[in-house]
Amino acid sequence: MKPDWIAVDWGTTHLRAWAMGSGGILAEAASDDGMGHLSREAFEPALIRLVEPWLTTGRAAPVLACGMVGSRQGWFEAPYRTVPCAPVVQGALVRVPVKDPRISVQIAPGLKQVKPADVMRGEETQIAGALALDPGFDGAICLPGTHSKWAQISAGEVVSFQTFLTGELYALLAEQSVLRHGLGEGWDDGGFDAGVAEGLSHPERLMAQLFRLRAEGLIAGLTGATARARLSGLLIGGELAASKAWWLGLPILLVGSDRLTGLYARALATQGAPTRSLSATDCTIAGLALAAGAFSKAAE
Amino acid sequence: MKPDWIAVDWGTTHLRAWAMGSGGILAEAASDDGMGHLSREAFEPALIRLVEPWLTTGRAAPVLACGMVGSRQGWFEAPYRTVPCAPVVQGALVRVPVKDPRISVQIAPGLKQVKPADVMRGEETQIAGALALDPGFDGAICLPGTHSKWAQISAGEVVSFQTFLTGELYALLAEQSVLRHGLGEGWDDGGFDAGVAEGLSHPERLMAQLFRLRAEGLIAGLTGATARARLSGLLIGGELAASKAWWLGLPILLVGSDRLTGLYARALATQGAPTRSLSATDCTIAGLALAAGAFSKAAE
Repeated sequence: MKPDWIAVDWGTTHLRAWAMGSGGILAEAASDDGMGHLSREAFEPALIRLVEPWLTTGRAAPVLACGMVGSRQGWFEAPYRTVPCAPVVQGALVRVPVKDPRISVQIAPGLKQVKPADVMRGEETQIAGALALDPGFDGAICLPGTHSKWAQISAGEVVSFQTFLTGELYALLAEQSVLRHGLGEGWDDGGFDAGVAEGLSHPERLMAQLFRLRAEGLIAGLTGATARARLSGLLIGGELAASKAWWLGLPILLVGSDRLTGLYARALATQGAPTRSLSATDCTIAGLALAAGAFSKAAE
Repeated sequence: MKPDWIAVDWGTTHLRAWAMGSGGILAEAASDDGMGHLSREAFEPALIRLVEPWLTTGRAAPVLACGMVGSRQGWFEAPYRTVPCAPVVQGALVRVPVKDPRISVQIAPGLKQVKPADVMRGEETQIAGALALDPGFDGAICLPGTHSKWAQISAGEVVSFQTFLTGELYALLAEQSVLRHGLGEGWDDGGFDAGVAEGLSHPERLMAQLFRLRAEGLIAGLTGATARARLSGLLIGGELAASKAWWLGLPILLVGSDRLTGLYARALATQGAPTRSLSATDCTIAGLALAAGAFSKAAE
């Protein structure tokens, strides 16, 4: 197999690669060699370990990467571009010096917003991919995750964006805080909906509502499944309350895992806000293809 | 030395004891044998290890304890009393069966509130002590800490209370989240004040403001000292916004460490709310003395 090019999503905790041919994805591979674990010298060997089966002597396969790999602490810094701007533009990719002649590596730069200060790395590529898959989209794109992003899209540009610590806070609270004692397996849609309603109507009460999950577990019979779902709902509802200016009355596109986009769609539906969802992987690959100028070719 | 009695503050992570005489504290001792690390059988040995130098053969020293030691997962359950009620009453202490004839152990029960569900263990004793040290106090008592409590006090009773996850959230964010990369040593009062102002006026933006600390560190030169102080201010300001009904226009008594009560006093002063502060240790000991009916005797 000789891929035309290799798409790479390289975040803090993961490394994912796809061998791309004219018909789309030929193969995929993933490892735990996230940017967070690697010294500068370790990036190229980590990449080669993962994609070596796809490489051919005598040819430099184009590798297009996005994510934290382009941060100052990553492999090679791809300085932020400043919004408002198109999420990804051909020619703005940053070339990375490599030793292995079988690869030619470029990294997509992230975006920054000067005021209020904000940054993204990787999501700009997903946004570009979402716009490639849904041409002419104007409105709000939400990318739920560890650091959820809401981006205002107009005429193909990211006008502004805002990051929320929602996913990271959920993980810390569910796994490391006193609340972990009261969270169990399973899920309760009613608990999620109640959390969303509470989070949306009283986002300022978050720190009190969090402890209440513990107290209701101790003295009011709150089950572990309901507590887990309500915690998720409280945080997502809180995010929606604070991001209302981004989505109220606008078309909303959700980009992420099925699980997360499903939860956000459910929460937004309670507010009468319709959404459509795209897979983060599809958007990442489409965005990288666009960055490489390969999208039109790959789509032929 | 033969103490009249022994005061014990036994929380999840710590065990502290004071040898009490007619003139007050004769000696003190502490260990890491928090309730969280101990199996049921390990409590009595842990206590004896700590206070053995104060014990005398042929006499059972009264030991009065408060805190998580009285929880279901603790040494011996002291069932919650339900507010509204006096924070601690003589005769409500729960006697713990022990093997060592040199000690006689009682635990002060915690308080619960049915709706909205809330619980405390240990703070009820501090509140009782605060009311003993400041007789006739009516208003709001705030006990900042891992799980900050606000209690409404009237005619010597806890009418209602509310817990906030403020301190635990600060620790998780400062030590375990992505924000840890941007927090440094030192402190910046201006950063704290800015965080308080932001947290008080826009508590619903908390999850966005948290990520902004990271973004400003990356692209706007925010220092580690300012980031740390602003994080603290954001969370305390958010707590004050959500607890406004508890303190607005009322006398406020702060019970805690010098460091924490100082921060809360500073934050509340920006809202024109005067406060007085008492040491948590003084209040714990006074509360336990009161529970034992020993307060008047010790004060002679």
